[in-house]
Amino acid sequence: MATGSTQGSPRRGRPGYDQETVLRRAIDVFIRQGYDATSVGDLARELGLTKSAIYHHVPSKEHLLALALDEALDSLEAVIDEASRPQDGSAYERLRTAVRESVAVLVAHLPSVTLLLRVHGNSEVELRALARRRQIDERLAALVQEAVDDGSLRRDIAPDLISRLIFGTVNSLVEWYRPDGPVDAQVLAGAVATLAFDGLAVRP
Amino acid sequence: MATGSTQGSPRRGRPGYDQETVLRRAIDVFIRQGYDATSVGDLARELGLTKSAIYHHVPSKEHLLALALDEALDSLEAVIDEASRPQDGSAYERLRTAVRESVAVLVAHLPSVTLLLRVHGNSEVELRALARRRQIDERLAALVQEAVDDGSLRRDIAPDLISRLIFGTVNSLVEWYRPDGPVDAQVLAGAVATLAFDGLAVRP
Repeated sequence: MATGSTQGSPRRGRPGYDQETVLRRAIDVFIRQGYDATSVGDLARELGLTKSAIYHHVPSKEHLLALALDEALDSLEAVIDEASRPQDGSAYERLRTAVRESVAVLVAHLPSVTLLLRVHGNSEVELRALARRRQIDERLAALVQEAVDDGSLRRDIAPDLISRLIFGTVNSLVEWYRPDGPVDAQVLAGAVATLAFDGLAVRP
Repeated sequence: MATGSTQGSPRRGRPGYDQETVLRRAIDVFIRQGYDATSVGDLARELGLTKSAIYHHVPSKEHLLALALDEALDSLEAVIDEASRPQDGSAYERLRTAVRESVAVLVAHLPSVTLLLRVHGNSEVELRALARRRQIDERLAALVQEAVDDGSLRRDIAPDLISRLIFGTVNSLVEWYRPDGPVDAQVLAGAVATLAFDGLAVRP
């Protein structure tokens, strides 16, 4: 339909990418071959740009990493912010909602969350992201502690371990879940919450 | 005490490593910097050997990877072999034991299991390991199905998803568990089984 159209007039040899597209493609490459092993040249090749043209789109590799990690962290932070309002229900209800919402964030932002979970702290950007992630984990652990304290979670497992296990289960989804696969995101969120809080065994 | 001893007479500049030590150190390097990014030269440096001396100890990088992956896979296969004997109890009992035993294997073989979980299939050795791993996963999934069929696991979550979630939870332990940390391996195995089968919520 738009054959021969000059709309948007992308210059020859320099496709007219927007920042969002560049970011998505960069995240894919970072996940596929590892952030450290990816050069700006690799990103240029992925986008079909020359190495000098890439800087029109990409200030630096680290800038793209920072955008991706902020996307994941902002979304996860919003989950724990919402779960921290006592007027919204018991600690148990808010924790259970936080688990479901964390799964929803992971599904909606799968590539950036995957990247976040693989960050090892090799740069300033990564260290800042790890510090923010640790803060989120601590706030979730505090919510678990609250639910143990008010008697709604079992006391025979240490609250810290409970927290590790629940959010380890959530994080493990990045290893196999694919949004275009057979499992619906809502079903997944419900299943994780059911497993963690209700257990899989049928009550006698 | 053994100062000046010539016992074992390691040649100058060629420390007398046994195969086991070489393997352990290689696995550590593979995990730290990624298998693909590790050269035989890196392994030589790690062991304090010259690049030509390393071949006295290491036939090839891939040989070490194969040994590491076999260690993890043999141990995990033993777990599902044991869980596949109907005379040993109900499907539910055997599945619950398999979960605990999988955690025990993960703790006892943490580096090699970590390596296994990061394999992406970039070589023959890795593809063979992935095929073996898939077979183990399928046998575990069949055991889950058996436990659903005999009415001991809930039917409102698809058996495939149950299986993914349980063993995703087990696998996620490699991300944070450290044998020298505060959590005992037996306590960990029990906590994972409790979370998965009984759930964390206190029954009203």
